[in-house]
Amino acid sequence: MSTPQVNDDVPSTANGATEGIKRNPYASNASDLLSNVSNFQLIESTLREGEQFANAFFSTETKIKIAKALDDFGVDYIELTSPAASEQSRKDCEAICKLGLKAKILTHIRCHMDDAKLAVSTGVDGVDVVIGTSSFLRQYSHGKDMSYIAKSAVEVIEFVKSHNIEIRFSSEDSFRSDLVDLLNIYRTVDKIGVNRVGIADTVGCANPRQVYELVRTLRSVVSCDIECHFHNDTGCAIANAYTALEGGARLIDVSVLGIGERNGITPLGGLMARMIVADRDYVLSKYKIHKIREIENLVAEAVEVNIPFNNPITGFCAFTHKAGIHAKAILANPSTYEILKPDDFGLTRYIHFANRLTGWNAIKSRVDQLNLHLTDEQCKEVTMKIKKLGDVRHLNIDDVDSIIRDFHTDVNTPRLSPVSSDKNDDVPPLKKQKQE
Amino acid sequence: MSTPQVNDDVPSTANGATEGIKRNPYASNASDLLSNVSNFQLIESTLREGEQFANAFFSTETKIKIAKALDDFGVDYIELTSPAASEQSRKDCEAICKLGLKAKILTHIRCHMDDAKLAVSTGVDGVDVVIGTSSFLRQYSHGKDMSYIAKSAVEVIEFVKSHNIEIRFSSEDSFRSDLVDLLNIYRTVDKIGVNRVGIADTVGCANPRQVYELVRTLRSVVSCDIECHFHNDTGCAIANAYTALEGGARLIDVSVLGIGERNGITPLGGLMARMIVADRDYVLSKYKIHKIREIENLVAEAVEVNIPFNNPITGFCAFTHKAGIHAKAILANPSTYEILKPDDFGLTRYIHFANRLTGWNAIKSRVDQLNLHLTDEQCKEVTMKIKKLGDVRHLNIDDVDSIIRDFHTDVNTPRLSPVSSDKNDDVPPLKKQKQE
Repeated sequence: MSTPQVNDDVPSTANGATEGIKRNPYASNASDLLSNVSNFQLIESTLREGEQFANAFFSTETKIKIAKALDDFGVDYIELTSPAASEQSRKDCEAICKLGLKAKILTHIRCHMDDAKLAVSTGVDGVDVVIGTSSFLRQYSHGKDMSYIAKSAVEVIEFVKSHNIEIRFSSEDSFRSDLVDLLNIYRTVDKIGVNRVGIADTVGCANPRQVYELVRTLRSVVSCDIECHFHNDTGCAIANAYTALEGGARLIDVSVLGIGERNGITPLGGLMARMIVADRDYVLSKYKIHKIREIENLVAEAVEVNIPFNNPITGFCAFTHKAGIHAKAILANPSTYEILKPDDFGLTRYIHFANRLTGWNAIKSRVDQLNLHLTDEQCKEVTMKIKKLGDVRHLNIDDVDSIIRDFHTDVNTPRLSPVSSDKNDDVPPLKKQKQE
Repeated sequence: MSTPQVNDDVPSTANGATEGIKRNPYASNASDLLSNVSNFQLIESTLREGEQFANAFFSTETKIKIAKALDDFGVDYIELTSPAASEQSRKDCEAICKLGLKAKILTHIRCHMDDAKLAVSTGVDGVDVVIGTSSFLRQYSHGKDMSYIAKSAVEVIEFVKSHNIEIRFSSEDSFRSDLVDLLNIYRTVDKIGVNRVGIADTVGCANPRQVYELVRTLRSVVSCDIECHFHNDTGCAIANAYTALEGGARLIDVSVLGIGERNGITPLGGLMARMIVADRDYVLSKYKIHKIREIENLVAEAVEVNIPFNNPITGFCAFTHKAGIHAKAILANPSTYEILKPDDFGLTRYIHFANRLTGWNAIKSRVDQLNLHLTDEQCKEVTMKIKKLGDVRHLNIDDVDSIIRDFHTDVNTPRLSPVSSDKNDDVPPLKKQKQE
């Protein structure tokens, strides 16, 4: 059962760390012997898949800036648009290969000898070969049958290997391909020594349990690494990536903000949010996650989009707590309502206290911040005043501060009736908001 | 194995429909006897969870507008903020109960008799009771032990049932709660006749396989329906919801655009994208999915956010195809690179042809749209010109149209050298872009 007991001896430290929990319930499941949740690698494809995003037009300068930022972040591979796509694409590929980055440089080509020759001439560390294997793509895209596909794959793979660079073979639209055809071709290319085979959910149709089953099955057929590529049309690209790692895949294709064809693929930041919950030490040892916001801003500016309001980690409200009962618990121990630590990402938590759902614990915390002194009873009373105004209109922090200051002056000025002037009207008692 | 073969006899119709595929490979897995993928219900919580979104301040008028739109869409339940949260919250709850909507109206309360009494007085069709069961929440939020929780749950449930309205009991932070404690309390409340028990991933830490295991386990313990609530901190809220349905849950909590605490919960639109892939007939029979964009716009305006650029279905590029090889196949059969049909959502497909990754099939389609006549060879040639300019700068449609028109004039004007004036320079042959 994967819902283990959290040890009760959590320390009541102010920073709410979970150090006192003796084991991490979100770590790789002990029964998953093949899991790579604690041993994954990233193939960063902003400069390939991301270039297929509707708004993307990357100049050479921008490409280099993005490649350097990704390298600094710590991605294992950087994948570039095929040099066969256009003359500038070829030149950019060569330029990035010459930067001397720690990350390995890949380019992504069709399963054609012409493309393969061009690719190896650019100086890349590896070549990612892809061909459509679904009946849809075989019929409407390239029109080739499986024996033709296998034959050209072998030719291309042996050519690339003869140049001593890495080679990956991927099917396209894997989840709509015939399983036996797929396993046959993966076994063939594994035997001739590819470094990786790839599974691609090209249309974004796969769900986590399908992914797990296909990856586990493939894991038993090939000995090389398994790479996975998930589109996000039905919103499952992060979960599918995580589940693929559980099933024995090792490498995940990501792009910054998930940019790519249509609504894109597994986003780098979102996957980091998922993985840090599973293995914080591994993620922190490999990747500079405090750079995520900077990298997202760089790419968002280049493709002229806004960071989505609900983006994992960097969405403007990802660490904002609003309802009274949440605020109360978060003030006592942030782990109550946070599985991610904003500090890890160079970000800060915010308790949203200026609204009608607020509670007296949040207001008490604000009173302390203002260096004022009110008893708990007085805090409850001023909270009721704040909630009443919050029922009438949108509040801002100044509104709340001014109510608190006025109240503080009132209770500390003997000539005025101290408190509760409007307490006994006919409204029911106001309480804190509660929720799941 | 859940990667079944797609039948090869797909019709080559222009609209690319999948009618010819004899069975749907994304339908509920035949081995999942308890799956509710084809029998799910929606609890729409924009007016409860969504009110806890940082930017939300809903006036009574806005709440009523949203409730009516959700009812028209076809949601099964509408969940409202607790009447105990503020006086206006109570009045709004009563006002929405009086609208006579088809959807059942729920409100969401703490496990307290005071809150329960207030809730039943508003005229709601059901009450959702929640209490924190994790060691974190028991220690830092309400400070109660499991026997106290069970005792107060029984009292509240029996009171609500005595008023002949629906009652749901949910734990909070279920995935960090002790499994035996959880099953004990769920069995207790099931025996006294709750309509639903709820599992809540309050901090967004759960992953799909954990969800599946917990739901399957709970399914064997209780006889009532199971409801699930997933936060999206690690980007898995849609996938977790889908996997919960596979495991036997029946009801999913959603909100428009996923708005809620922090970065929110399972989004209504995103879940519809996931579910229509699994059971198109069921989704179309129950929900007006062509209204999704309108409802998202209504809520986005109310909380002052933009629709995320990468939103499922309604993101500006969700149905935009860019790379040459994608465009070629999409023009032949949209199912090649689309698992969702834009028509279903009242939206349209767009082939992005004005860029350096374009291919001659996309350009040929544009030539036809312009009512010009060029041979395939001529289309390939003008495509090379377009890709060359696309290497230098961002193109717009006018740029491409003007290149096509000039080229068309050239080849149809005998006094000029017809074509290929700059064909034999030293750049390698340009080809179409390819990708997974």
